[in-house]
Amino acid sequence: MKVLNSKIIDSSYWQALFAADSVAIIGAKDVPGSWGYDALHSVSESGRKGGPRHVYAVNPGCKEVLGYPCYKTVLDIEGPVELAIIVVPAPAVPQVLQQCADKKVKAAVIISAGFGEVDEAGSRMESELRRIAEEGGIRFVGPNCVGHADVHTPLASAGLAGGRTAGPMSIISQSGTLGANMMQIASDYGIGLSKFVSTGNETDLHLEDYLEFLGTDRETGIIVAYIEGLREGRRFYELSKNITKKKPIIVIKTGATAESSKAAKSHTGALSGADEIYSAAFRQAGVMRADDEEEVCGTVAAILTQPLPRGNRVGIVTMGGGFGVVTAEACEKEGLKIAPLEPQTIKKIGEILPSRWTQGNPVDMVGIRPTPGNMTIVDCIRCLLEDNNVDAVLTLLPLIASFYGPPDSVDERKLRALHAENREKTEQLAKELKEYGKPLYMVTRFSFHQESILPPSYSSDRIPEFKHHSRAARVLKQLAWYSRYLEKRTG
Amino acid sequence: MKVLNSKIIDSSYWQALFAADSVAIIGAKDVPGSWGYDALHSVSESGRKGGPRHVYAVNPGCKEVLGYPCYKTVLDIEGPVELAIIVVPAPAVPQVLQQCADKKVKAAVIISAGFGEVDEAGSRMESELRRIAEEGGIRFVGPNCVGHADVHTPLASAGLAGGRTAGPMSIISQSGTLGANMMQIASDYGIGLSKFVSTGNETDLHLEDYLEFLGTDRETGIIVAYIEGLREGRRFYELSKNITKKKPIIVIKTGATAESSKAAKSHTGALSGADEIYSAAFRQAGVMRADDEEEVCGTVAAILTQPLPRGNRVGIVTMGGGFGVVTAEACEKEGLKIAPLEPQTIKKIGEILPSRWTQGNPVDMVGIRPTPGNMTIVDCIRCLLEDNNVDAVLTLLPLIASFYGPPDSVDERKLRALHAENREKTEQLAKELKEYGKPLYMVTRFSFHQESILPPSYSSDRIPEFKHHSRAARVLKQLAWYSRYLEKRTG
Repeated sequence: MKVLNSKIIDSSYWQALFAADSVAIIGAKDVPGSWGYDALHSVSESGRKGGPRHVYAVNPGCKEVLGYPCYKTVLDIEGPVELAIIVVPAPAVPQVLQQCADKKVKAAVIISAGFGEVDEAGSRMESELRRIAEEGGIRFVGPNCVGHADVHTPLASAGLAGGRTAGPMSIISQSGTLGANMMQIASDYGIGLSKFVSTGNETDLHLEDYLEFLGTDRETGIIVAYIEGLREGRRFYELSKNITKKKPIIVIKTGATAESSKAAKSHTGALSGADEIYSAAFRQAGVMRADDEEEVCGTVAAILTQPLPRGNRVGIVTMGGGFGVVTAEACEKEGLKIAPLEPQTIKKIGEILPSRWTQGNPVDMVGIRPTPGNMTIVDCIRCLLEDNNVDAVLTLLPLIASFYGPPDSVDERKLRALHAENREKTEQLAKELKEYGKPLYMVTRFSFHQESILPPSYSSDRIPEFKHHSRAARVLKQLAWYSRYLEKRTG
Repeated sequence: MKVLNSKIIDSSYWQALFAADSVAIIGAKDVPGSWGYDALHSVSESGRKGGPRHVYAVNPGCKEVLGYPCYKTVLDIEGPVELAIIVVPAPAVPQVLQQCADKKVKAAVIISAGFGEVDEAGSRMESELRRIAEEGGIRFVGPNCVGHADVHTPLASAGLAGGRTAGPMSIISQSGTLGANMMQIASDYGIGLSKFVSTGNETDLHLEDYLEFLGTDRETGIIVAYIEGLREGRRFYELSKNITKKKPIIVIKTGATAESSKAAKSHTGALSGADEIYSAAFRQAGVMRADDEEEVCGTVAAILTQPLPRGNRVGIVTMGGGFGVVTAEACEKEGLKIAPLEPQTIKKIGEILPSRWTQGNPVDMVGIRPTPGNMTIVDCIRCLLEDNNVDAVLTLLPLIASFYGPPDSVDERKLRALHAENREKTEQLAKELKEYGKPLYMVTRFSFHQESILPPSYSSDRIPEFKHHSRAARVLKQLAWYSRYLEKRTG
């Protein structure tokens, strides 16, 4: 991949960052809840699970942390150190980074805050870090970040990445907490994770560098980014345009309003820039822009489990006319079309449902409840999937459920057993329905008696589940757009 | 209250509908999951909990349902019957209603579907029902609805209303499932319920009739409505304008787009009308218009627990700069102002937080975590509440929490104990912070290690909790608007 302004960062740096076998935590602390404690704990856990074999704690003021003897400086460690996680106070960071360079450490993650995001003196310290890194041949993440992770190797300096399921989604985030939240929501959706980077002030490595790497990374199938401001907008555009041909990119871009832009500046020193320019660039590069983490994860879930929609005409199956109304409205507001059904579809559904049915789209189940013994809803979904006017189907209830009934009459244990059985049957149905080559999304608005039917990790035999009709409509719109974009690009 | 077109429905009808001592379920069935079963089960449960003492099952084809002997017709019941719940097939409804009239039944709830929402013959049946009711002096809910409930008496024909906590929120819904969903979300938020009516085709009683009644109902403090189309728009406007002076009204109005309007028509025969006209009327009448059930319930929770905001200037306290950025953006998009802090506030916060803090609004906690022993965040919130430029405060983390840490290091049991303790302390803090006379809302974006701190039912010593910053911003905007509206109306 040839890209304008590519810095062509040697793969050995990425190797050290995400798969180091020897890691030093400089500023490790014995105070649970402190950054120095969490970082050591995370790396240590990674090691226990097959990650780095050599983990070192560095802190001149401690004897031992979490069972690790403390070294005074990184230079006192006997063996080689590929990666340093730095959590010392800001004024001490330049000296520590110099020691890392002297030790021939390959890469560093500087979690410490209090640099350019605070004042001019902080900015000068950042310049100093940049100089030390350049002269010493070391590349670094941050400062002012919550760390990084590779869930596959595994190796995590960010505490919140620990214990995740490995998978195809990688996250680059200009906010640590928002990135962490994204990881959590992804896990809730059953999406497996690959790399995670909280980019911080991007003094050395930029968001664009991570993007370039993830574009070629075998373990990354989908790239997600939270962006407050880009330092290399043109490069981002060129890279994305290349990557989106093969891997979807989904971004959240904030800083569109005056005060949020100001907040972003004081957060990581990022300049937000004109929102319209960003939007246009994203569109041309095939990048999907989402509103928040939940939309991102919903989109990823849909990509991982269902075909892309070939158009924007939606068929809706609903339990309850009201849900049909609000869903049709949400779809139309997103620019989707409520598909006019073919006459033979209306005829076929007429043979399935009582005569009082709605005779059109949305198809209301007029009170027929989806139970293990009743496949009426699946039959209706098939009719819609077979209709040539329909590009995608939204169902406003699970294919099989037992959620309906007076709340005080529910036996929690029986319900769970039933759900387990239903889950298996639903997976089988999901597989069968995929043969139509059209996406099927599920909206489960009912929070009661409703256990998620998502498995711990997404396979392709699932139906993605959305808690709100607007979420499903939005994701469908995004993917219908991406699908058209790909068609135009690749012909 | 004097209102244009008021039908002045005699209070004895409302008494029969919501507090009948004798109820017949006509069409009771022994098939769990059927409407006839659910209705009998619900009324029976109501009776068990202090509701109607006389419950009768009517079904000529059954001997007994749920232990109740079956009567052939309502006329065969020896004692008086105040309320009839009708679940027989549509064609049998006119005859059954006539029998009710002959029996001097006061009110009926017709759950059966298959009337005007289906075809012309159905519309003619509705006219017939109207004639029978007028001549027989009986008033009825529906047809084509999921029933009704009063959680206080209690008396529920709608299965999903069973087992709810009694409270001040009443629901009028032109969609059964959406109304039921609203009840569930309200329960999830810890909001207690009063009346619930699924209005169906509104052949006799209109949404406006229920509104008029709830406006005077002592047990109803807040009225919520899901509207597809109004049959008496002018009357709704006049009634609302009177009611909102004392009780907040929050509505969802759908049917704004072409296909959703069509879906509404086939759902309950409602005509949606021009969306802008509805919006303008709502504004003039002081009615808050919400997008969905969750916004409705969030608004109710905020009203029940916090003062109304006196203006639209927001102070934000956040854990993580990124959350500050997205929240500021969401607030500005809603037309709220990010309050410029007074110099003394900046000075005071400077004495609380490390020097690297953001020096302005949003106030980022720069990594300081809210734990039982650390009240830094509460001190910052106090500073914002004391600031004359701030009308309301959003906090992007709980006042006390233990949610931060590696997910694989969590002891679920310890966490629950800690949460119980924190809950109590938080309630105490909520009480103290209320003395500033300004609203405080909490946004908990983290889904992990985060148990809701909401109690089973709202008291005034709570801080309402939102899962998304946009939700909190939206509710704040609604209530800032309502507050201004009240000020203008009442001076």
